[in-house]
Amino acid sequence: MAYTEKDKVTQERLVSIAADWYGQMAGGQVPSITLPTRTKANIEYDAKTEVWKYGSKGTTRTANSAKSALHILKMAYVVGFLKQQLNESRSSTLREMYYISEGWKRAKFAAQDESNMLVEDLEIVTKLSREAFHLRPEEDGASIYGPLHLREQTKRGNRDIHCQENVGEAGYPIPSNVENIKFLDHDASFIIAMETGGMYARLMENGFDEEHNAILLHLKGQPARSTRRMLKRMNNELGIPVVIFTDGDPWSYRIFASIAYGSIKAAHMSDILVTPAARFIGVQPSDISDYNLPSDTLTEGDTAALKAILTDPRFDTEYWRHQIRLQLEIGLKSEQQAFASRGLDYVTKEYLPTRLSEMGIL
Amino acid sequence: MAYTEKDKVTQERLVSIAADWYGQMAGGQVPSITLPTRTKANIEYDAKTEVWKYGSKGTTRTANSAKSALHILKMAYVVGFLKQQLNESRSSTLREMYYISEGWKRAKFAAQDESNMLVEDLEIVTKLSREAFHLRPEEDGASIYGPLHLREQTKRGNRDIHCQENVGEAGYPIPSNVENIKFLDHDASFIIAMETGGMYARLMENGFDEEHNAILLHLKGQPARSTRRMLKRMNNELGIPVVIFTDGDPWSYRIFASIAYGSIKAAHMSDILVTPAARFIGVQPSDISDYNLPSDTLTEGDTAALKAILTDPRFDTEYWRHQIRLQLEIGLKSEQQAFASRGLDYVTKEYLPTRLSEMGIL
Repeated sequence: MAYTEKDKVTQERLVSIAADWYGQMAGGQVPSITLPTRTKANIEYDAKTEVWKYGSKGTTRTANSAKSALHILKMAYVVGFLKQQLNESRSSTLREMYYISEGWKRAKFAAQDESNMLVEDLEIVTKLSREAFHLRPEEDGASIYGPLHLREQTKRGNRDIHCQENVGEAGYPIPSNVENIKFLDHDASFIIAMETGGMYARLMENGFDEEHNAILLHLKGQPARSTRRMLKRMNNELGIPVVIFTDGDPWSYRIFASIAYGSIKAAHMSDILVTPAARFIGVQPSDISDYNLPSDTLTEGDTAALKAILTDPRFDTEYWRHQIRLQLEIGLKSEQQAFASRGLDYVTKEYLPTRLSEMGIL
Repeated sequence: MAYTEKDKVTQERLVSIAADWYGQMAGGQVPSITLPTRTKANIEYDAKTEVWKYGSKGTTRTANSAKSALHILKMAYVVGFLKQQLNESRSSTLREMYYISEGWKRAKFAAQDESNMLVEDLEIVTKLSREAFHLRPEEDGASIYGPLHLREQTKRGNRDIHCQENVGEAGYPIPSNVENIKFLDHDASFIIAMETGGMYARLMENGFDEEHNAILLHLKGQPARSTRRMLKRMNNELGIPVVIFTDGDPWSYRIFASIAYGSIKAAHMSDILVTPAARFIGVQPSDISDYNLPSDTLTEGDTAALKAILTDPRFDTEYWRHQIRLQLEIGLKSEQQAFASRGLDYVTKEYLPTRLSEMGIL
């Protein structure tokens, strides 16, 4: 993959950070850098884009203490490393960069948390994602199956792949950098993202994607950035709705929230990672009694997590308040595969079509 | 995917279990079933196949107690469910089957562990794998990239896929049932299986697969059954060596052991899951000083695990005794990505070629 226009822009923004320090020093100033304060108190809802973002509170690091000077030195080394990596059209993992810092003497990172945080700072300052810096995550692994024809620009050239006709049963695995994908053509009416591999395989086996022109996406638990970016891009660029199908417990509602509302940790990436139009299709606490689902008693941890959700601004809607209160009242949770107790076809023939109709999607 | 000859054999073997009970009852006997004892004491090394298997100790369950009668009743229900599933050319997850048992009255499973154990018993009795019963695992997810052309028989028809030319950067994801794959053609000299996604991406980016005609396989930590089966089949049917590249710590050595020697839990599946010819390529404890790798101090848990390995019959070779004792002596461990401290090319240009030459593979 050759050096692209995008790589050039990325490199310029990174180098401009170092250029600013140079300018400060040339003007007789101590070099410094200002970043938004990354706490819950500095998260604000942006009505225009419908996502949560950092507010206006900022923290300035000035190299007039050894600690801040060292931080700026490390950032300078990282900028240098990324500049070279972009120049050579290469990439690396966050873990590899941490090990590479072994050769940076005093700028060596003490732990990987430190280098990860610094990369997030660079994302904030440059308004670019770490994928633009050619930094790969350790794992990706989510996959899609459905009527979508795409082109992935790989290091070995372009690959045109139809996500039903050119893939095996495990589907098309989403690469770590979703920006290398171009959507060629599709015949899909909506996207359904699922928490478990069992449900993904169930919908595929039952032909749900063919019957309803649906793109199936396996989230593999808490979704990776590449998976959230893929959902966002499909929602925007294909112009079709996204529904999220998870287990009915607080940890699963947080999976939904990370997709639809974003997270504090990645609030600076909300514009590219968050799909505000994504809707929750279940399992809803009200489904447990409505469908007489096998269920488990809430643990203490579940109850505490549900109570925390009641104070989470992302869940401050009538729908969620009602469902969470109901769940605390009945004290039960159910998994998405619990629909199997009514037969292997129930979820695709009854539950999902009913819910999709209610939502106006079918 | 239609009902196959293999499905027919599977069905016959399952039904014969119930037929035996019928015969016992018709002859005035209390129905019973005998299974190998599944403990460490009943694991034996089979020199012919070079894998660890269950020995001759057996346990008989006779339906003359309520507990054993209930166990046999549950097994009868599972046999009935699997028979119908095979007849209809369908499949399900272990989790779905657990939920389906909701409708089996007294034969309902109390917990999923119980139904999983029962499926393992059926594997032992039928000498078939649960994949043959059309029972899917929850997750799969390992992937391969390299000069291999294969055909996957999917529920939507055959898919011919070349694992470099027809896949994106994430590679070809291994499906849950590897028996549906047919190897068409290949240009590979060996297979290298890696613990981390970072290393898999590193070898791909550096063109290691092209330079050395290697098939890259990402294990994704402790490998799933489908991954181990894929390694076994490639080793046998392509007739090329397999090397395993992991971090240098006791948990990673166990990944190697599960591939090369098998495990107690799946000793009845050793013939199809274990690759005795697989060899460990590193990170070896001796590499930490030989290559001056960044390292971490062993934790108490690491030390205890290393000591346990010294008494594990699977590691009772001169090579492993030497390496484990050395590691306990130096008190250090290193990750496979630690080679990045010597540059992003070091692992593919120096370390792996050197080790592969020593092993006689390059």
